[in-house]
Amino acid sequence: MTEKASVLLVGGGSVGAIAALNLEVGNQAAVTIVCRSNYQAVKHNGYNIRSCDHGTIQRWEPSRIVNTVPQTDRDGRPFDYVVCVTKNVADVPPPLSDLIRPAVAERTVIVLIQNGLNIERPMFAAFPANVVLSGVSMIGASESKPGEIEQGFNDILYIGPFRNPNLEGDQETAAAHAFVRMYGAGGKTQCEFNADVGWTRWRKLVYNACLNPICAITDLDTGRIRLADGAIEGLVRPAMKEIIAAAKASGYQLPPTIADDMINMDPLDLYLPPSMLQDLRKDNYIEYETILGEPLREGEKLGVPMPTLRVLYHLCQAIQWKNKEARGLVSIPPKGDFTAS
Amino acid sequence: MTEKASVLLVGGGSVGAIAALNLEVGNQAAVTIVCRSNYQAVKHNGYNIRSCDHGTIQRWEPSRIVNTVPQTDRDGRPFDYVVCVTKNVADVPPPLSDLIRPAVAERTVIVLIQNGLNIERPMFAAFPANVVLSGVSMIGASESKPGEIEQGFNDILYIGPFRNPNLEGDQETAAAHAFVRMYGAGGKTQCEFNADVGWTRWRKLVYNACLNPICAITDLDTGRIRLADGAIEGLVRPAMKEIIAAAKASGYQLPPTIADDMINMDPLDLYLPPSMLQDLRKDNYIEYETILGEPLREGEKLGVPMPTLRVLYHLCQAIQWKNKEARGLVSIPPKGDFTAS
Repeated sequence: MTEKASVLLVGGGSVGAIAALNLEVGNQAAVTIVCRSNYQAVKHNGYNIRSCDHGTIQRWEPSRIVNTVPQTDRDGRPFDYVVCVTKNVADVPPPLSDLIRPAVAERTVIVLIQNGLNIERPMFAAFPANVVLSGVSMIGASESKPGEIEQGFNDILYIGPFRNPNLEGDQETAAAHAFVRMYGAGGKTQCEFNADVGWTRWRKLVYNACLNPICAITDLDTGRIRLADGAIEGLVRPAMKEIIAAAKASGYQLPPTIADDMINMDPLDLYLPPSMLQDLRKDNYIEYETILGEPLREGEKLGVPMPTLRVLYHLCQAIQWKNKEARGLVSIPPKGDFTAS
Repeated sequence: MTEKASVLLVGGGSVGAIAALNLEVGNQAAVTIVCRSNYQAVKHNGYNIRSCDHGTIQRWEPSRIVNTVPQTDRDGRPFDYVVCVTKNVADVPPPLSDLIRPAVAERTVIVLIQNGLNIERPMFAAFPANVVLSGVSMIGASESKPGEIEQGFNDILYIGPFRNPNLEGDQETAAAHAFVRMYGAGGKTQCEFNADVGWTRWRKLVYNACLNPICAITDLDTGRIRLADGAIEGLVRPAMKEIIAAAKASGYQLPPTIADDMINMDPLDLYLPPSMLQDLRKDNYIEYETILGEPLREGEKLGVPMPTLRVLYHLCQAIQWKNKEARGLVSIPPKGDFTAS
């Protein structure tokens, strides 16, 4: 048997925990997981996982649990893979590339299991010689309390190369295939090689640039948004039409049923909150720039009218500003008072 | 001295309390005020008012405080005026006309000190022989606790006739002038006759259909919305341009400085929440149909593109639905559960 690959998994929330589990059950990877807010809970009690793919697992631990990005694995080996499953909050420093820099060695393959468009650009700039892979996950998972993970849907992870003009395409494709084999080796989850990364990313944006911010802004989950007066026909479908048009202008023809597929993807009566709504309910930043701002800018650059997404974008921007103010990232003039005459 | 007019004032919140005070200090009106949620507090302790027009007044009481709409005043006289200062929540029953019906006698003048468009239509239908006056108040007032009223700005109340084709215009105009005299008699406030009710209502919509819902949806007050990244240029100005265009198409040319006037109306550092934001923070219904839905429908009927307001409208509609669900006005299927295999 070959030596296990050494994987650094950055982001120990719900998606990260399931990814770590998928990698370790295949027995081809040893995972070092970087936890932030849930570090103490996971370090002391491991993960308690209730998963449609893996069943119920108590106190599960990956090979190593840390709370900062290390330079090497426990044996001093450079990481073969740095897998990023954090939120991609492009408008709040530090950039992700700064965060992972200590762990990126000469041959490290970077895997971005993250939503949105153009997320590879800062990675190409920071690590011009490293292969960067795209991961698009169709997982439905949440962390109700630190370390308590629920996965309600069978995961499908699409892995493909972000084409870096400085590198050989064959090398990137081979790296993607190797990751797919390693990730799916346990047989509990579905991981597919994805040649056309752009198509897959635009496809997911039909959900993520539309339903996701609309649910976040209205504080309604994906079940309620389907029941609320006028929300699907007045908001969700117009937004989705704009994304589908922008995808087409970018060269990606999405299937004709895509809007209905995405609207009906989550079972109505599970009342699942999409990721941005989960983030707002936890007072976390929302990743609106990569999943809403970038497709908006791409579409408008190509002349596609996107009036619905433009309003949703600026509403998210204002909501993000509010979170920044609450955390002291921006400051405002002190409150005055009126004088009763 | 002539006998005081008998006024029923429906709605005992901040705007209603200041209106009652203005009417009573002029000594030409005896006010019966109808309180709802703050009835117990006002009945027992009166109003505590801190006002830029009236100074600080402790335990102030209008002539009579009730919690249902009576048929007559205390002396059995029919009301000369029924003044409505409630929120106009057109999409939540019962209609306001049903609420005030017991108090509307043959010669009762109905005064709607309320925001939005087309609010006179249900009144004309319900009371075809009664004069209905428009009141547009530029007040900035809030009720921090039941009966605790703060008025930060000098009030200006514009009173004019809603033209009812069944009635004589002279009669309506005379009724408006009489109300203006009575309301302003105390000399503490400004009340002006307003011949062109439509112009005044569209003018206020530049604030109310734009800043008001944008602040409500983002949970940002009028100070913060001016500081938040991109909110004025990306949201507020585009929305205001649409309202100004719809007003123009409806025959009302608003002044060229109107957008800036409205954006800068509230002093930034008072961080004042507009009415819809106050309502949402108290889990109250929002009056989005009269201040946003009606101008949107009017503008679009006249061919004015209003993409920003259309999105804001549907977001408000979804938020209102959420409030309706919370209060049991709509019901949803029970929550299901997924099975971990």
